[in-house]
Amino acid sequence: VSELRPTWVAGAAGSGFDADHLPLGVDPRHGVVARIGHHALPLRSVVEVRGAGRASRPLQPHLVDQPTLNAFLAAGPEVWADTRRALQDALVDESSEAELGAALVPVEDLDLVLPFEVADYVDFYASIDHASNVGRILRPDSEPLLPNWRHLPVGYHGRAGTVVVSGTDVRRPSGQRKPPHEATPTYGATRRLDVEAELGFVVGVPSALGTPVPTSAFADHVFGVVGLNDWSARDIQAWEYAPLGPFLGKSFATSVSAWVTPLAALERARCPLPWQGEVLDYLTVAEPAGFDIAVEVELDGEVVARPPFASMWWSPAQMLAHMTVNGASLRTGDLYASGTISGPERDQRGSFLELSWGGREPFTAGGRERTFLEDGDEVVLRYSAPSERGRVTLGEVRGRVLPAQ
Amino acid sequence: VSELRPTWVAGAAGSGFDADHLPLGVDPRHGVVARIGHHALPLRSVVEVRGAGRASRPLQPHLVDQPTLNAFLAAGPEVWADTRRALQDALVDESSEAELGAALVPVEDLDLVLPFEVADYVDFYASIDHASNVGRILRPDSEPLLPNWRHLPVGYHGRAGTVVVSGTDVRRPSGQRKPPHEATPTYGATRRLDVEAELGFVVGVPSALGTPVPTSAFADHVFGVVGLNDWSARDIQAWEYAPLGPFLGKSFATSVSAWVTPLAALERARCPLPWQGEVLDYLTVAEPAGFDIAVEVELDGEVVARPPFASMWWSPAQMLAHMTVNGASLRTGDLYASGTISGPERDQRGSFLELSWGGREPFTAGGRERTFLEDGDEVVLRYSAPSERGRVTLGEVRGRVLPAQ
Repeated sequence: VSELRPTWVAGAAGSGFDADHLPLGVDPRHGVVARIGHHALPLRSVVEVRGAGRASRPLQPHLVDQPTLNAFLAAGPEVWADTRRALQDALVDESSEAELGAALVPVEDLDLVLPFEVADYVDFYASIDHASNVGRILRPDSEPLLPNWRHLPVGYHGRAGTVVVSGTDVRRPSGQRKPPHEATPTYGATRRLDVEAELGFVVGVPSALGTPVPTSAFADHVFGVVGLNDWSARDIQAWEYAPLGPFLGKSFATSVSAWVTPLAALERARCPLPWQGEVLDYLTVAEPAGFDIAVEVELDGEVVARPPFASMWWSPAQMLAHMTVNGASLRTGDLYASGTISGPERDQRGSFLELSWGGREPFTAGGRERTFLEDGDEVVLRYSAPSERGRVTLGEVRGRVLPAQ
Repeated sequence: VSELRPTWVAGAAGSGFDADHLPLGVDPRHGVVARIGHHALPLRSVVEVRGAGRASRPLQPHLVDQPTLNAFLAAGPEVWADTRRALQDALVDESSEAELGAALVPVEDLDLVLPFEVADYVDFYASIDHASNVGRILRPDSEPLLPNWRHLPVGYHGRAGTVVVSGTDVRRPSGQRKPPHEATPTYGATRRLDVEAELGFVVGVPSALGTPVPTSAFADHVFGVVGLNDWSARDIQAWEYAPLGPFLGKSFATSVSAWVTPLAALERARCPLPWQGEVLDYLTVAEPAGFDIAVEVELDGEVVARPPFASMWWSPAQMLAHMTVNGASLRTGDLYASGTISGPERDQRGSFLELSWGGREPFTAGGRERTFLEDGDEVVLRYSAPSERGRVTLGEVRGRVLPAQ
C-alpha cells in the first residue's frame, strides 16, 4: 500500500480520508459507502463497474446493498482485505474515474445511520490514569486502583439498544439521585451529566460458545474502530452502582461515529503498550499491541482535552481475550469500548468528572468556569492517527444536550 | 375465560398445560406453536383452518411462520389477546377437532429452540432474602442490604448473546480466581459454579428513546414470562466485580425455558407485594403487582429448594419503570430477569451460594454433602402458579454441567 499512487478524487490528499483510510458507513439510499476525501463511494458502484477486479474473493452485492454493515462484517478478514484492495485499486486507477466519478456522493448529501446493528455492548475501564483519577475523586482515603485492576481488564455490559449514531441529540436523563449530604434519594434530572471519550471496537466474525478467543485472533474477529462517547449521569451512577455496577447512569445513550475505520488503516498507528508487569498467559500479546490515536474533546467548538489513546494500559486484543476467556461467544455486531481515555496530564482527561475533579475544581471553556454539561452544550470527539500518507481522521462523535423531559 | 368448556385435546386437563395456559414456543419445522397438554398446536394451522375466526385483529401468517417469536411479540397486546382467544375457541370447540387434531405435534417430537431473539438482557436483584443472604455471606461485618436497595430495584446488563434455551449443556467456565488467602490470581476452571433460580420477563412492544415507561404500562409492553437460570461462577465474580459489577462470572451462559407463558395466563397468580414503605412516585404500582409463582430447584432429580416468587420485594412492573426512567428505550426481545428468587426459609434459597452459606455449611442432596455444582450435575428449575383451571406449569429450565475445556 505504501507505493499507492495518488487517488483521482480531488481533495482527498491531506484530508484525513485519503486512500490509506477508507472508513465505511451506511446511508439508506446508497447502502455501504467508503469515505474518500469529501466524498463517499457506494460499494455497490464498485461491484457494478469493476466486478471481481483483482480480488480473489469478489465483493458480493448482497454484502453491500444493506441497511447495516453486519453482512459485510460477518464475511470475515479475507473479504475485508479484498474489498479494501479493490477500493484502493479503483481509487488510484485513473481509468476508473470516468466510470466511478459520477457515483461519488458529497459527504454533506449523506444521511448516515448507525453503521451496524449492535449485538452486545461491553465497556472496559482500561486507562490507568482514568481509573486512578476516579479512585482518587470518589474514594480519596483508599488506594486509587482496586486490587484486580492490574490483573485483568475490568469491564461490564452496557445497553446495546441505546447506542446511537453521531449527531443524535441526547436528552438529559432523569432518575434517582442522592447526594451524600441528603438522607433519602429524590427523583429528578441529572445534575452531573458527563461525557466519556472512548474508542469502540467492532466485531465482525462470531465465535463458538465455549471456546475462548486468544489475543492473537484479534484481527480475525475485529473489523475496525469507532469513536465512542459513553454519556454518563454521575449522580444517578453514584447512587445506583453498588454492588452490581453502572446501569441507568449510562444506559440512556452511547454515541458512536458514523464511520468505522478498518484496523487495516491503523497499521502505522501500532505502538507498544505501557509495561504491564506479569500477566496471566491468556492476556499476553505480541507487541506492538497498542494504538497511537490522538483524541480531542471539544465543547462548543473549543478543545478542552487531548487524551492520548497510546497511554491506555490494556490493549483491545487483551480486552477481547478477557471477554471470551470464560467461553462467552462473540456475535457479528458486538461492540466493546475502551473506557474513558485519559492521559497523565490534566489537559489529557477524557471526562468532565476528571477535568473538574469531581466538580470541585472547575475548568475554563468558552471564557467561563465549567464542571458538568449544561443544556444546549454540544460535544464533539475527534480522533486521528498516523498512517501511510500522513494521518487518518477517524469518524467524529457529535452530540448536543437537550433539556430533561 | 372462566366458563371455558373442556378442551377436546386428551390429557390436557390437570397437565398444567390446559386451555387456560397456552404458552408459546418455536420449532424450526412448525414455526410458532402453543402447548396444550402433551401436544403443541402450530399457530399456522389455526390460521389456515379458522382464518380470522371471531378475532377482531386476525392472526397473520407472517407473525407465526417465523424462526422466533419476535414478530408476534412486536404485534402488541391486541394481537396477543385475539390470538389467545382464537386458540382457546379452537381448542374447546369440538367441531375443530376434525380439522386441527391432525395438526397436533407430540411435545417429544418438538425440537424447541430459543423462543425469541434476545435484544438486551437485564438482571435485577429483587429478592430481599437473596440480597440479604448474599450481604451476610460476603460482607459479614456490614449491614446486609446496601443503602440503595429499598429505594430502587438494583440491576445491571448481562450478555444477551449467551442466552441459551433449556436443555443446552453448560460448559464449566475458566477465568481468573483469587481466593482471599492467595496473593495473586490464577487462571483455571471455576470451583464455585452455581445456579440462580429466576423468572424472566419478555418485552414485546418497543418504546421510544427518551420516554420512560410507567408501571401502569407493564402489560402494554411485556408479553410473558420465562423460567431463567442465571448460571454464576462465584469465584470469578468475586474477584472481578468491583467496581463495575458482574461480568465473566455470569456471561458464559444464561438458560431460559423454551416456553413463554403469557401474562394473560397468570391473572389468578397476581398477589400483593410485601409492604415497601414509601417509594418514589415513578415506582408506585396498582396492586396486586406481585405473582404467586412456586419454584423448585432440582439437582439430579431431587428438589433441593422451593423458592416462592410471591416473596419478591420488587415487582416486574417496577423493574420495567425503573429500567426506562432515564429514557432508555425498549426493543422487541428485551429480556429482564428478577434476580435470584429466595424466600425467608433455608429450603427456599434459590442459589447454592445461599443453600451452602458460601460453601461453609454443605447441604445434603443425593445422600451426599454438597456445596457448588460438580461436573455432570443436571439442574432443572420448575415453576407453577394458580390459574382458572387449577395450576399452570411454566416452562422448565434444564441444564447439565460439562467439564471445563
